[in-house]
Amino acid sequence: MTHILLKHATIVTLNDEDAILTDADLAIADDRIVALGEAPADFAADKVIDLSGKIVAPGLYNAHTHAAMVFARGYAEDMPLDRWFNEGIWKLESALTREMVRWGVRLAMVEMLRGGVIGFADHYFYMDEVAQAVVESGMRANLAWAVFGHDGGEVGITVPETVEFVKRWDGAADGRLRAMFGPHSPYLCSDEFLARTAAVAVREGIGIHIHAAETGGQVEASLAAYDMTPIELLHDRGLFETHTIVAHAIHSNPIDIAILANSHVNVAHCPSTHMRYAMGVTPVPEMLEAGVNVALGTDGAGSSVALNLWREIRLAVVMQRQARNDPEALGGLTPLRMAARNGARALGFAQSGVLAPGFQADLMVIDASQTHYQPIHSVPASLVWNTEPADVRDVMVAGRWLMRDRQLLTLDEEAIRAGFDRALAEMMAKPLGQFKTYEVDE
Amino acid sequence: MTHILLKHATIVTLNDEDAILTDADLAIADDRIVALGEAPADFAADKVIDLSGKIVAPGLYNAHTHAAMVFARGYAEDMPLDRWFNEGIWKLESALTREMVRWGVRLAMVEMLRGGVIGFADHYFYMDEVAQAVVESGMRANLAWAVFGHDGGEVGITVPETVEFVKRWDGAADGRLRAMFGPHSPYLCSDEFLARTAAVAVREGIGIHIHAAETGGQVEASLAAYDMTPIELLHDRGLFETHTIVAHAIHSNPIDIAILANSHVNVAHCPSTHMRYAMGVTPVPEMLEAGVNVALGTDGAGSSVALNLWREIRLAVVMQRQARNDPEALGGLTPLRMAARNGARALGFAQSGVLAPGFQADLMVIDASQTHYQPIHSVPASLVWNTEPADVRDVMVAGRWLMRDRQLLTLDEEAIRAGFDRALAEMMAKPLGQFKTYEVDE
Repeated sequence: MTHILLKHATIVTLNDEDAILTDADLAIADDRIVALGEAPADFAADKVIDLSGKIVAPGLYNAHTHAAMVFARGYAEDMPLDRWFNEGIWKLESALTREMVRWGVRLAMVEMLRGGVIGFADHYFYMDEVAQAVVESGMRANLAWAVFGHDGGEVGITVPETVEFVKRWDGAADGRLRAMFGPHSPYLCSDEFLARTAAVAVREGIGIHIHAAETGGQVEASLAAYDMTPIELLHDRGLFETHTIVAHAIHSNPIDIAILANSHVNVAHCPSTHMRYAMGVTPVPEMLEAGVNVALGTDGAGSSVALNLWREIRLAVVMQRQARNDPEALGGLTPLRMAARNGARALGFAQSGVLAPGFQADLMVIDASQTHYQPIHSVPASLVWNTEPADVRDVMVAGRWLMRDRQLLTLDEEAIRAGFDRALAEMMAKPLGQFKTYEVDE
Repeated sequence: MTHILLKHATIVTLNDEDAILTDADLAIADDRIVALGEAPADFAADKVIDLSGKIVAPGLYNAHTHAAMVFARGYAEDMPLDRWFNEGIWKLESALTREMVRWGVRLAMVEMLRGGVIGFADHYFYMDEVAQAVVESGMRANLAWAVFGHDGGEVGITVPETVEFVKRWDGAADGRLRAMFGPHSPYLCSDEFLARTAAVAVREGIGIHIHAAETGGQVEASLAAYDMTPIELLHDRGLFETHTIVAHAIHSNPIDIAILANSHVNVAHCPSTHMRYAMGVTPVPEMLEAGVNVALGTDGAGSSVALNLWREIRLAVVMQRQARNDPEALGGLTPLRMAARNGARALGFAQSGVLAPGFQADLMVIDASQTHYQPIHSVPASLVWNTEPADVRDVMVAGRWLMRDRQLLTLDEEAIRAGFDRALAEMMAKPLGQFKTYEVDE
């Protein structure tokens, strides 16, 4: 058993009282936090680390991404969402390879870890590659294999195959891995397929990660076809009878919000993508007020360009303040709590996201002694509004350092860069497929 | 004469064609760029620098700030603007000291330089201290001494004294310093004082830097008192008959925009502050379309917490996309152009902000070889959406390196930190003044 003692830190706990401790200790035994504030007199540390001037906080969770899509970073800019899909991303993805996913997810993990992200909910293809990468990296993840399901069958992977995928990985890597179903969305999956997926999910005890309600047009189309909003439809077809992550849920009305709250649905809010593609303003304060667990995601780099949770933390705030003309919206630690504690819960890591005895030792160390943090009148303000990825010095998951002094300890960045460049060159050399003609808003 | 040759760089010129050169040279003689693309065969470089994997772009300008106000970073959060003034900032400022300005501006310069900011338009008090700091730092700046002018006289500094201040510094430090008048605003200066300031400005050939149209309430109050909007009033009283920077101008109607354009007024748009305090959405696309020179500012750290122009660059875009439901608003290099080229023009540095032969060698070097930039499908997208201050490696002003490999060459950071801490402790130990009761919206 390894005992680590962090000393003289400012500790942002994100516990129920939002307690912030100053000049405090944090004692870690193996994978868990055993004491906070002052370490027990009999705590025999193998390693004592002085964190004067540093802030320790729970690590961040990226609650919705397509990590490997870093290959599409900046590929389809400054256009409406339907053109982004049809002329950009789907065209490029027609050439997707297993190798591209293998190296893409690793490149994304380098970027995320360097910014204090300790876990991510991934929704993509070739997900065994992603699982293997997560095992190696020491991060946490919740993996969903994306399926476009139609009445005539599934595209790419079948429901029985995704059951096998989930059984292979859910709970693996000492519990660092969770796996779920990934039906793409109510607009790209048939009604019958969604109901079938839900039935299997409930029977097998498997969660679901799905996109919904991204545009007003999707809501209108759903109302026209089913006389139900996308959220009502998912609820009606049984998808909320298990642990569910709904990405986006931008166009949610008060009834939708009540359904999300009563069904304990986790919402992954992705402000960079929503703002960049003018998709609308999610009623996040109303969701939080109703008790919905709203977490934050970057979405894929194809739409957000950067996998920077700090940016999402701040955009979540300013988006609401602008939209509702309310300078008090989502104040204090609220956005950080969404990114860390709510993220942990959304991904199914109930023992993470809070710094408290008994919880997993999942944390990041931020160098708030730097000049651009001075002076610190308010720890929440400085942490939320001054921190960029480069300010995160160390990252720990389950008591294991994954980054120390900005050196990655589990990922071989040089090899990843070489593999990524090779896979991308091979993919870009392939002929790109036909434009798909599916209209997102229809 | 010093000759420097930068080689193998990706060069974002921000010239009229928005040209981007790859694997290009940039030749510098003394303070000026002499060649771009390929260096002349007879260019004898004293120093050759390989910039493979790096992006070179014009340095950024912070077109509206109160730099020394870093002392108020995070001091008054999550509240409406009138409470921010009355309960927060003005209370703290009642204890302001010359020492606090001396060290505050230096701390701010460390933060700005580290993020690629080469010049700033400062609007504050004890401005001789700021001027001295700019001389030492090697940066550019346009300095305005803030005046609250009433019919009975000026608070703090008189108009003749500001004339002396301007004459002392305008054009100093080999032209790196500009100085202007700084009447605070139409809501904190009397009508008569504004007219008097404008008359002296025109007579003496002095520019003006002023706040205006920050809230809807200010516009209503101006209409009630003068039957003119704040922009119309400033125009009518002659403040636009010289080189003028108007900070904010958020609540500008089409007639205001026409006035700003026809009068060649420079607008300093500060999205962090506008969004955090829910002040409204400036019609920036309409202003640009009308020919208004819109630059970007951080405002003071008392309202923006960070002096990070990259954040302003991105917020300027997403603010518009959200507000007008337009995913194509301010695309490509537009926001960078606002921060660099438009900023240089706003501050009165016509030979800066563009990388072209004959222009000043004012530039930043960005390390786009890092993992979080990969792959680069689009230089504009990667530069605008992936760059954080920590990615800026080098900064040059007038051919002189102010930062190399993130080491500051003109500022003594350790001494600045010590001086800042001392000045802040002295200021915070003073009794704070009465709350001012001025209502911003009245």
